Amino acid sequence: MTIKPPRKPLIPGWLLVVLAGLLVFGLGVLASSINERRAESKLARVQFLQPLDEWESDPAKWGVSFPRQFISWESTRDAATRPSFLPESTGDYLAQRPELVVLWAGYSFTKAYNKPRGHYHAVEDVTATPRVDASTPATCWTCKSPDVPRLMARDGVEAFYANSFDHYRSEITNPIACLDCHDPQTMALRISRPGLAEAFQRQGQDVTQASHQEMRTLVCAQCHVEYYFKGKEANHLTFPWDQGLTVENFKQYYERSGHVDWVHAISGAPMIKMQHPDYELSRAGIHAFRGVSCADCHMPYTSEGGLKYSDHGVRSPLMNASTACQVCHRWSEADVRTRVLSIQGTTRAALSRAERVLAEAHLEIGDALSLGATDAELEGVRHQISVAQMYWDYVASSNGLGFHAPQESARILGRAVDLAQECRLETQRIRARKGELRPLEMPDISTKEKAQAFIQPYLEAQKAAAAGK
Amino acid sequence: MTIKPPRKPLIPGWLLVVLAGLLVFGLGVLASSINERRAESKLARVQFLQPLDEWESDPAKWGVSFPRQFISWESTRDAATRPSFLPESTGDYLAQRPELVVLWAGYSFTKAYNKPRGHYHAVEDVTATPRVDASTPATCWTCKSPDVPRLMARDGVEAFYANSFDHYRSEITNPIACLDCHDPQTMALRISRPGLAEAFQRQGQDVTQASHQEMRTLVCAQCHVEYYFKGKEANHLTFPWDQGLTVENFKQYYERSGHVDWVHAISGAPMIKMQHPDYELSRAGIHAFRGVSCADCHMPYTSEGGLKYSDHGVRSPLMNASTACQVCHRWSEADVRTRVLSIQGTTRAALSRAERVLAEAHLEIGDALSLGATDAELEGVRHQISVAQMYWDYVASSNGLGFHAPQESARILGRAVDLAQECRLETQRIRARKGELRPLEMPDISTKEKAQAFIQPYLEAQKAAAAGK
Repeated sequence: MTIKPPRKPLIPGWLLVVLAGLLVFGLGVLASSINERRAESKLARVQFLQPLDEWESDPAKWGVSFPRQFISWESTRDAATRPSFLPESTGDYLAQRPELVVLWAGYSFTKAYNKPRGHYHAVEDVTATPRVDASTPATCWTCKSPDVPRLMARDGVEAFYANSFDHYRSEITNPIACLDCHDPQTMALRISRPGLAEAFQRQGQDVTQASHQEMRTLVCAQCHVEYYFKGKEANHLTFPWDQGLTVENFKQYYERSGHVDWVHAISGAPMIKMQHPDYELSRAGIHAFRGVSCADCHMPYTSEGGLKYSDHGVRSPLMNASTACQVCHRWSEADVRTRVLSIQGTTRAALSRAERVLAEAHLEIGDALSLGATDAELEGVRHQISVAQMYWDYVASSNGLGFHAPQESARILGRAVDLAQECRLETQRIRARKGELRPLEMPDISTKEKAQAFIQPYLEAQKAAAAGK
Repeated sequence: MTIKPPRKPLIPGWLLVVLAGLLVFGLGVLASSINERRAESKLARVQFLQPLDEWESDPAKWGVSFPRQFISWESTRDAATRPSFLPESTGDYLAQRPELVVLWAGYSFTKAYNKPRGHYHAVEDVTATPRVDASTPATCWTCKSPDVPRLMARDGVEAFYANSFDHYRSEITNPIACLDCHDPQTMALRISRPGLAEAFQRQGQDVTQASHQEMRTLVCAQCHVEYYFKGKEANHLTFPWDQGLTVENFKQYYERSGHVDWVHAISGAPMIKMQHPDYELSRAGIHAFRGVSCADCHMPYTSEGGLKYSDHGVRSPLMNASTACQVCHRWSEADVRTRVLSIQGTTRAALSRAERVLAEAHLEIGDALSLGATDAELEGVRHQISVAQMYWDYVASSNGLGFHAPQESARILGRAVDLAQECRLETQRIRARKGELRPLEMPDISTKEKAQAFIQPYLEAQKAAAAGK
C-alpha cells in the first residue's frame, strides 16, 4: 500500500488573506469592548459611598455602597429557599414524619420543627419558636444576628454565653447579614464568632491563615456545623471537632466528654441532639474534595452588564441552577434536577427507615423498663440507641438531604439502622428474660397529634420524677 | 461620581498589524499540519489486510489487520487487572474474608473464589476452577469464548445450553476476544450472545437499535450482568431483568419465578447467588447517567502519532488514569486515586459488616433448627436471610467495589444489614420460644480453613439427607 501526498493544500492562499482581514477587524471590536467593560467594572471595585462603623449590623447601611449584594441578600425574605419539586421543601416536619416526636421525647424539638427559612428571618424565627423559653441561654443568639459580635465584645464572650436569651432581646434586631462574614472596613471575609476559631485552635490550626476560597466556606462553617453548649452554667458554644469531623469522631468526642443533651422520656437513654453538621458532612462529598466552596453553589457569581458579584440570596442552588450548577456542569437543567432528586430521594427513604427502627427501639426499651428491667440491665441498650440516633441525626439534621455527600450519608444511615437493630436484638433478649417473647405492638403514632398525645404521659412521669428528686 | 472615558485605546494600531501577521503565519503552519495528519490517519480507517471468516475466533487472525487493538487485547495476559494500591487487587477472597465460606455453605463457591484475571485467561480459568465438574452445563461456556457463537449456530442455542460443559471442551479454545463484540466483515459492534437480546425483547426493546455509544456498553453487558440458568434441564441463560435492573427488581423477579440456586447447608434457606451485575449497578451511577460507556473508561481512546484507537487491554481505569480518567477529570492522578480509594474503602467496610451479620444470621437459624424449630416456623426467617444475602451479593459480586455507583452500593448494603438484622430479631424470638435466651456463641471461623472445616459436617448432613430422599 502506498500513501499518496495530498495534491493541493487544504486551505488556499486567498482564503488565508480573507481570514487575516476578518481577524484584524475582530481584534478591533474586541479592544473596543474591553475598554467599555473596563470603564463599567470600575463600579465593581470595593469602594465606599459611605463609611461603615466597625459594629454596623444594619444591612441597609452596607447596601448603600453594595446595592447588588444587599438586594440579593434581601431576597432571602422570600419564603422559598428550596424549589417545590424537592422533598422537604415545605411545611411541618413533625406532621410529615410523626416518628420524630417519639425520637425526641423529652426534648423541645417535639414541640415544633419546621422547614428552614432564609437568613432574613433568623431573628424573627428564633424568637417565635416554642422551643425557646425563659430557661434558654443567650448562646442561642450566637448564630442569629450581626448584633452578636458587638455584644460579645462589650460584655465578654463568657458573660454573653452565661446570660439568658431574654437578656438580649431588645438589643438584637438584625437577622444574619453582612457583618457576620465581612470586615466593614475592607469587605474581606473574616470569622466573627468564637466557636470556629476555638475549634481550629484546639486542633493546632489558625483559621486566620485560610485562603480566600477557603473563607468562602469557613464563614458559613461558623454556624452550619454541629455544636453543643459546654458547661451547665457556662453554656459555652463548642464544636465537638477535637477528634475530627466524621460522625464516628463525634461519637468518640461525646463519649469522652460525657455531655448529654437530654434523657429520653420513654427509653431513659442519655441523648445527644445533632445540630446541622452541613460543613462536616459536606467535607466527605465530591464538591468539597474538588475545592468547591459553599459560596460557589449557594452564593454563585452572577453578571450584570460588565459587573460580576456574588449573589447573596443564600438558598438551594436549584433555585438558580444556571449560575450555581451549570457553570461547571454543562448539563441540561432537567438532568441536574433529575440527579439531585435521585440522590435526595434515596437519602429520604433511608432516613425514614432509620426513623422507624429508632422509634421501635425506644419503645421496646421503654417496654423492657415497664417489665421490670433495671437501669443496670438497660445501660448497654440505652447507649446503643443513643449512638444510633446520633448517627441518624448527623444526616437528618444536615441541610441538602444527603446531596452534600451521597455515599457518606447512605453509609451513616446504614450504620444507624444497624446499631439500632443491634440494640433491638439485645432489648429483645432482656424482654425475653422478663418473660415477654412476643414482638412489641407499636402504638398508633401515624400523625403528629397522635404521637404527641402518646408521649404525653411519659413526659409527665419524667417531670414528676425530676420534681421528686 | 462621574465615570471618565479611557484616554487611549487598550490595543494600539501597530500591535494589531503585528498580531495579524503572526496569525497569517500560524494559519499556514496549521494547514500544513492538518494535511500531514490526514495522510497518516488513512491508516486508521477500517481496512482489511486479510479478510476474516464469519466465525473467526482466533484473535491473532484479527490482529493482522488491527495490530494495535490486538496487542492491547493481548496485554490482558498480564496478571494485574487492578493496581496494587486498591483493595481486592490480589489473592484468595475466601482467605481474606472467611465469612464467605459460611455465607455460601452448600454451594460451590466455598471451594475457591479468587480475584478475577484478564479476558486472556477466560478459558484457562474456567477449566481450572474446582467449581466446574461433570455436572456443569455447557451454559457455563457462554461468556468465556468467541468459539461459542459458532457452536450455538451449529447446534442450536437450546441444544448448546442443554449439553454438558465437558461436551465442548475440545472445541472451545480461544478466550474472550474480537468476535465476541465485533462483526468480522464491518468491525461494527454487535451482540453475539442470546441472553442480552432476549432480555431486551422481553421488555419490548430491540437491542439492534442501540447507538454506537450505547453499544460500547451493551457488548460488555452481554456478560457483566446478573443471570441464572432457567429450567432444570434446559439451563437457559436468562437475565432476571423483566421488572428492571435494581436489586429490588431482582428480588421481585426471583420471588415470582421460584428459582433457587441452592439450599443453604446451615440455615436451610433457599438461596440465590448473584453473578456480577456490573452493568445493572453501574446504571445507578453518575458515569452512566452522563452517558459514559464502559469502553470510555475500561478501553479508553489512545493516540499513537496521528492514530486514535480504543485500548483493548480491558482493566481497571486506574491502570492508565491519564487516558481513562483524566480526559474528563482534570485532576492530578493522586487526587483520582485518593477519591477512588475513599469510595472503595467505604464500600469494603460496609461489605465486611454485612458479611459478619449474614454469617451470624445463618448460624442462628441453624441453631434454632437444632433447638427443634420446624420448617414452618423458620420459613419467614429463611426468606429474610435469602433476600438479605441477595442484596449484599448484588454489590459484593460486582466489580469496582461500589465505585460504579457509590450511593446505590451504600444504600443496598445498608438494606442488606437491616434485613439480616430483622431476620436475627425474629430468629431470636424463635430461639427464645425454644428456651434459649442467650446470644449464640460464634464459632471460630477466623481463617478459610477453619471456616471450611466448620461447615463440613453441615455439608455431609445435607448430602446424607439428599441421598436418603
